[in-house]
Amino acid sequence: MQESLAQISSGLAETASGFYSRGWMLGTSGNLSAVVNRKPLRLAMSPSGADKGALLAGQILLIDDQGRVVSEHRAKPSDESPLHIRIVKERGAGAVLHTHSTWSTMLSDIHAGAGGVAIEGYEMLKGLAGVKTHEYREWVPILENSQDMPALADAVGETLSQHKDSHAFLLRRHGLYAWGDDLIQAKRHVEILEFLLEVLGRRLLMTEDTN
Amino acid sequence: MQESLAQISSGLAETASGFYSRGWMLGTSGNLSAVVNRKPLRLAMSPSGADKGALLAGQILLIDDQGRVVSEHRAKPSDESPLHIRIVKERGAGAVLHTHSTWSTMLSDIHAGAGGVAIEGYEMLKGLAGVKTHEYREWVPILENSQDMPALADAVGETLSQHKDSHAFLLRRHGLYAWGDDLIQAKRHVEILEFLLEVLGRRLLMTEDTN
Amino acid sequence: MQESLAQISSGLAETASGFYSRGWMLGTSGNLSAVVNRKPLRLAMSPSGADKGALLAGQILLIDDQGRVVSEHRAKPSDESPLHIRIVKERGAGAVLHTHSTWSTMLSDIHAGAGGVAIEGYEMLKGLAGVKTHEYREWVPILENSQDMPALADAVGETLSQHKDSHAFLLRRHGLYAWGDDLIQAKRHVEILEFLLEVLGRRLLMTEDTN
Amino acid sequence: MQESLAQISSGLAETASGFYSRGWMLGTSGNLSAVVNRKPLRLAMSPSGADKGALLAGQILLIDDQGRVVSEHRAKPSDESPLHIRIVKERGAGAVLHTHSTWSTMLSDIHAGAGGVAIEGYEMLKGLAGVKTHEYREWVPILENSQDMPALADAVGETLSQHKDSHAFLLRRHGLYAWGDDLIQAKRHVEILEFLLEVLGRRLLMTEDTN
Repeated sequence: MQESLAQISSGLAETASGFYSRGWMLGTSGNLSAVVNRKPLRLAMSPSGADKGALLAGQILLIDDQGRVVSEHRAKPSDESPLHIRIVKERGAGAVLHTHSTWSTMLSDIHAGAGGVAIEGYEMLKGLAGVKTHEYREWVPILENSQDMPALADAVGETLSQHKDSHAFLLRRHGLYAWGDDLIQAKRHVEILEFLLEVLGRRLLMTEDTN
Repeated sequence: MQESLAQISSGLAETASGFYSRGWMLGTSGNLSAVVNRKPLRLAMSPSGADKGALLAGQILLIDDQGRVVSEHRAKPSDESPLHIRIVKERGAGAVLHTHSTWSTMLSDIHAGAGGVAIEGYEMLKGLAGVKTHEYREWVPILENSQDMPALADAVGETLSQHKDSHAFLLRRHGLYAWGDDLIQAKRHVEILEFLLEVLGRRLLMTEDTN
Repeated sequence: MQESLAQISSGLAETASGFYSRGWMLGTSGNLSAVVNRKPLRLAMSPSGADKGALLAGQILLIDDQGRVVSEHRAKPSDESPLHIRIVKERGAGAVLHTHSTWSTMLSDIHAGAGGVAIEGYEMLKGLAGVKTHEYREWVPILENSQDMPALADAVGETLSQHKDSHAFLLRRHGLYAWGDDLIQAKRHVEILEFLLEVLGRRLLMTEDTN
Repeated sequence: MQESLAQISSGLAETASGFYSRGWMLGTSGNLSAVVNRKPLRLAMSPSGADKGALLAGQILLIDDQGRVVSEHRAKPSDESPLHIRIVKERGAGAVLHTHSTWSTMLSDIHAGAGGVAIEGYEMLKGLAGVKTHEYREWVPILENSQDMPALADAVGETLSQHKDSHAFLLRRHGLYAWGDDLIQAKRHVEILEFLLEVLGRRLLMTEDTN
């Protein structure tokens, strides 16, 4: 398991560095996790408050299904660990990534009244697991932000069970959560959804569509 | 031929990495090819589903004119290989590059009703093969997106024969295809067209031009 | 003290390089400082007119509380050293960072009439020292720009005493000043505030919010 | 002179690479020069059609005041060499840099009717040689683009003599020319002006300034 943890931790650190460069994990924002073991659940999890542009694989914690650190680190896991654990359990995800981009922050607020944002008809959607055509409508639910993590985890659980086809959700004025069977898929999902949210956001600025 | 393939593959991988950094090949989107041999046709082609920020030269496949892998890889070539092959045949291109940028995605939709987007009067146009002055009008045709690759390849073929001067085309809500005599020229064409599509897109936002 | 200075200087140079890459310290703009000693005050300070993309740790000056160079450099410290010294004294800051981004430049002008810009309800605010929830309102005061450094330092002092909870201020059409207990925290604060100012700036462009 | 040329060429190649990364020299656009010798005039000049992201110091040509290559290269100098030579003569510049950014392309068109764009009241202006305060108005003249290089060089000469305080000019729908006493200053001027043109361009999008 330790070798596997080392590899997974390297992947998480590399992903963090790339997302930081794109401005999706500035100011220690965002967090990352990946499943190391299913039974009992062991999750490689980024520590709280780490600079994602300087995160080292050795800083990645191992936590259990209660969010307790089981590796020999003194650091705390991200406050949002309960959300990661819930997503892993509800979706059977192998990795969960949470980003804070300007576009996801804006769209999570602009579309909050509608309860989510629909992304439809784009080729990029085909990169989401199970989607075979651009003629597809992805619904990205938006949840109100909260600092009450158990309550927010329950809200996430409810949202996930109501929207079984959704590959991600937004927290209002907060950011994007996406996941995948493994880190490679989760990273792909984040890139696709951040790209498409930017497209939707920029389209909102175009008051005079020529079409 | 093998040495040549190695060099070409390195060039494709390097181009993929650069375009990924610019956000033009996120989420495994986009694909790249270059001619290794004309008769019989052998095309170096990016594999399906590869992370373009981590693509290695050794992952580049060799395919024939039917899109069959003739190198010793188990990976599949990009689903869009038929479009690459058609462009190579119709235009005598030595390399074909396909990007997914936010601006090309947006403009391919906004101008779809007009069947294309005209780019006129910009110095950057001079970088397109055969263009000697900025006083030039490039027509970038827009095709409806489709998952029916043989049909889409035929539509591409028809578009290419109707618009013999065009250096590229857009697939609606999908992205840009550009090509060139070799990879260097194809890369230059992509950079020029992505730049100019961004300029046109940003100009659409300016409701009050002062001129 | 010298070893500590070397470490601090490396940190400042690395921060400058990262901010330069993001376009926040172009054209030799911006400056950086960190406390090396409190009594007597010794501040590691970037030299005037240095290219922040090429700044070396060895170029970082040591200055006293009057802005005089006490290291063996011939270079001048940044003209804005008095502002850094004032912030260190008023806030007990361990590091002060000053950036010039397009968004902070624009918002410092657009909101100048209101005397500042309020940032409220965003999760990213939680990364500011002492902030525990997104349900928080950060007031970023805006000061008129001036070349009279003693007068501007006094205006900064007054602003800091009037707005004791503020983590940063803007100089009109000039840029952002943020600070922290140490360089790590100051860097985090800059990233958070530049991110949020970009969000607010882009929201201003959205004339038709759908919510 | 040869050692000096080697150093200057390295500086030009490094500058090209940095500007390419920022998207200011895409698609082989833009060109760079620096004075190696005054009498007789010898200019280090980028070759025509080079990829600025891959430009090597060894590719930099040495040309005379007629634009003839005097180094042992077979490559052609940039078509726009006459403009570089004219700027060097008229302004006594030690380096000339020409970029193609989206913002300078747009603003050179939007403000063409006014014959130029005024940039006033920004702190960043202080980075221009000889400017001591933000209370300054920089006039950036805009010239109509042309492929007739001798005529365009004459128009540049006339503009430079009419606007003796200007640090740069724009060619319409083409890009920015800036210069400096040496490459370091010219690079600083480009960064400052590209930054400020982006600020002005983004301000044009804000139809509802709150101030």
